[in-house]
Amino acid sequence: MNTHGKNIIGNNLSAMGTSSFNAYDVASNSLLPTKFYEATTTEINAAISLAAEAFGEYKNKTGKEKAAFLECIATEIEALEMELIETASKETGLPLARITGERGRTTGQLRLFASQLTEGSWVNAIIDNALPERKPLPRVDLRQMQIAIGPVAVFGASNFPLAFSVAGGDTVSALAAGCTVVFKAHPAHPATCELVGAAIIRAAKKCNMPEGVFSMVHGISHQVGHALVTHPLIKAVGFTGSLKGGKALYDAAVKRESPIPVYAEMSSVNPVVFLPEILTQKAGDLAEAFAGSIVMGGGQFCTNPGIFLLLKNESSTNFIQLLTAALTAKPSVALLTNGITDAYYQGITHQRNTEGAIGLTAFDANTPQPHLLQIDAQMLISNPSLTEEVFGPSSVAIIAKDMDELIECILHLKGQLTASLHGTADELKNAGVLVDLLQEKAGRLCINAFPTGVEVGNAMVHGGPYPATSDSRTTSVGTQAIYRFTRPFCYQEFPDHLLPDALKESNPLQISRLVNGIRL
Amino acid sequence: MNTHGKNIIGNNLSAMGTSSFNAYDVASNSLLPTKFYEATTTEINAAISLAAEAFGEYKNKTGKEKAAFLECIATEIEALEMELIETASKETGLPLARITGERGRTTGQLRLFASQLTEGSWVNAIIDNALPERKPLPRVDLRQMQIAIGPVAVFGASNFPLAFSVAGGDTVSALAAGCTVVFKAHPAHPATCELVGAAIIRAAKKCNMPEGVFSMVHGISHQVGHALVTHPLIKAVGFTGSLKGGKALYDAAVKRESPIPVYAEMSSVNPVVFLPEILTQKAGDLAEAFAGSIVMGGGQFCTNPGIFLLLKNESSTNFIQLLTAALTAKPSVALLTNGITDAYYQGITHQRNTEGAIGLTAFDANTPQPHLLQIDAQMLISNPSLTEEVFGPSSVAIIAKDMDELIECILHLKGQLTASLHGTADELKNAGVLVDLLQEKAGRLCINAFPTGVEVGNAMVHGGPYPATSDSRTTSVGTQAIYRFTRPFCYQEFPDHLLPDALKESNPLQISRLVNGIRL
Repeated sequence: MNTHGKNIIGNNLSAMGTSSFNAYDVASNSLLPTKFYEATTTEINAAISLAAEAFGEYKNKTGKEKAAFLECIATEIEALEMELIETASKETGLPLARITGERGRTTGQLRLFASQLTEGSWVNAIIDNALPERKPLPRVDLRQMQIAIGPVAVFGASNFPLAFSVAGGDTVSALAAGCTVVFKAHPAHPATCELVGAAIIRAAKKCNMPEGVFSMVHGISHQVGHALVTHPLIKAVGFTGSLKGGKALYDAAVKRESPIPVYAEMSSVNPVVFLPEILTQKAGDLAEAFAGSIVMGGGQFCTNPGIFLLLKNESSTNFIQLLTAALTAKPSVALLTNGITDAYYQGITHQRNTEGAIGLTAFDANTPQPHLLQIDAQMLISNPSLTEEVFGPSSVAIIAKDMDELIECILHLKGQLTASLHGTADELKNAGVLVDLLQEKAGRLCINAFPTGVEVGNAMVHGGPYPATSDSRTTSVGTQAIYRFTRPFCYQEFPDHLLPDALKESNPLQISRLVNGIRL
Repeated sequence: MNTHGKNIIGNNLSAMGTSSFNAYDVASNSLLPTKFYEATTTEINAAISLAAEAFGEYKNKTGKEKAAFLECIATEIEALEMELIETASKETGLPLARITGERGRTTGQLRLFASQLTEGSWVNAIIDNALPERKPLPRVDLRQMQIAIGPVAVFGASNFPLAFSVAGGDTVSALAAGCTVVFKAHPAHPATCELVGAAIIRAAKKCNMPEGVFSMVHGISHQVGHALVTHPLIKAVGFTGSLKGGKALYDAAVKRESPIPVYAEMSSVNPVVFLPEILTQKAGDLAEAFAGSIVMGGGQFCTNPGIFLLLKNESSTNFIQLLTAALTAKPSVALLTNGITDAYYQGITHQRNTEGAIGLTAFDANTPQPHLLQIDAQMLISNPSLTEEVFGPSSVAIIAKDMDELIECILHLKGQLTASLHGTADELKNAGVLVDLLQEKAGRLCINAFPTGVEVGNAMVHGGPYPATSDSRTTSVGTQAIYRFTRPFCYQEFPDHLLPDALKESNPLQISRLVNGIRL
């Protein structure tokens, strides 16, 4: 396929604007030829109008129809074969094997949501039958289920060109919920976006979905995103990216005449606590595994462990030496964009220039290497900037003189996607306080495990208190992510024929329901 | 009991401030003697600090322990006997019978949440067991449940001095979720608040709950509310009241360094659509029932039907005549406060002064009477202020020349708590489009029923799109309200003994769980 660089507005391609940009080949450090046309206000409004029109039809598609659509998207993505893998690898610098794995995650995610829709119980059907004889007042017939919230704007992330991009978790959970989607392509991999966007349109046509169920706009300026988020017909926003970017969208959304929810996954350093005895027993294995977690995906995962806390003693000194050696042995990595490379260099430089901070690994501005810094706990407490995310393969060791100081450090942390705790069975027996404190700070807590590698399943929480996300009440990974794009609705005294199938008295979908307080 | 007018800070009474106010006796139109002391910043901070400390202990109480606490609050409220009923009636002007009924609703609500906690499945336990042999990657053990979000600020409403006040739906659902509560008493019924606040403290002591699980501050200025909502240790806000008040709290909360969710239930005119044939068949019964809905609770319910839509024809003319007669026959009512009485007079005056609007009932500024206005559909479309809430026993008839115009009116409506549709069986057969459109605008849709009378159960949704509430994803009435004050949390690779009981492998609580995708 020849890359055209145009916006996908419903079923049409459009390039009305004069502003354009090119994608970048990370390996050769050079611009790629195709011009991508930034969407104009007219194009953005057209995409949103189509999304709003399509919503009326799409939300009433059955679960099986929506499931078939998601499965068809997966099939269309697989049909892109190596063209997709190679394009994504070129635009991001991520290796072919990693992109291939990520494609599997993306299509697996589509099929997981499809199976959730096919099964159908996710709508949380609740039925309270009428009790006409109840005293002092009769009860009317009341039925509740989750319904789609409306057209949604989704912003792709740079670090997962497939799994958190065009057909990624936000888009899929919104489509599964019954929402239509206007997607803002990430300018760091626009050709990849074009391929996947076209795959979704093909799937939509094959499955007789209404035009506008999905549109995709390009943009490298902030205006495109702002126009999407502030449009009155957009009812929710999904975003994965920087704190600055997510906060800007959040601020725009809450100032609207009708504020809307923004699910921005933004910033996390994913603290790891190592208790002393486990470091005595397993220093070598832990150092190797932890180094692997730090460099996984070039350190460009939201769950990258950017800080770790240990008590000052021989076993932690030994562990840090082993970890330094393990990280030094790792190759340098090409980061996703020049912007990320620059920010990585600046972040590490800021850390190393902090008085008292010890750079444990070599550092060269020209080749982004895995990096390790060591500071004392009191430095973290007095200088919170040392716990800000440095996006890339780096981590900061925080040495506490005793458990009280370590706990004080935890209390000073902001909200996180994850926290991790390593200890022996004996150490964990008395770790209730630590578990409680880490839970307050995060959306997921790993015991004797590292946070990288986010399972797409039912029980995953990829979320957490601010600034990890803008809304700790949700997850952006796994089947529960669907509830970001729904709201509860109550049907009072409805005749059976007007009820959705999920709430009809005979339970034609055979789903699990809460009926008069009993789970059936 | 002698009313003391002090703030309840943990287990202590406090009156450090110099600013005070008196409650009002609505019947005699005179100030009541007790001075209520507005909380100072020191007192507010002390209450929040205690709430944060108590949270660490309270969140880990078992469901049964929390249930016993809620049940004990209900018992303590009942033990207040007529003193509570008479105090609330005096401060609000609501009749003794209404307050007595509301007390039953309040204690019933406490016991409903207690039963939800005792049963235990509400935590939404989800378990994905480890799959060590899975290819290409093993699956780790992941478990998810809802956990309490943190200390919560709750603002009481003026129109339900018991059910939406100190021990009302917001407080109870927050306590049920495992959150500690700092309650802002409503200055229109502070003595009632004092009685119920003391009942909660007695229950907390009897049930060995930590000091700070509940505090209550007084305030008539905006500063008290602002200080609560902007305090960094407060993690969510519950509010029922005016659009202006709710929006101010929302704006303060989203500007915090760490934004928090605000559940503000604010403004709704609860449109009712009457199809023509049902008006031909049942005009008399419907007029009587609708008049009853308009004046219920002095018209001071959030679900009061403030507008209704009909087609221009003989049957609707007849219906409006019957409704006018029914409303004229209703007595005038004492509204909750002088402020509400003034606003009611101003709202009705604004309506009646609008060119083309027809006042169908008499109107006298001195005695707030039930009021009916009639306008043409085009007036609503060109002048949206005619659909703004006038709090009190009034409604506006909107006459559309045909169904297209009626639908255009619906499209012009803002978000609502409820909508209602009346039609014969035949009319409803073809009402799919109307049902769809009304659903977009509301949180609950009643068929051949009126929206007043909000059942406290499992299936109720008392919520809806902005400005009905600040967050359409929730309900403030019924058991599902608990989820406003929780967030999902994921436990990865936890040893069984560190897991909460709800997620332990043996399922000691015997609750319904989603295990490896299967509902058990």
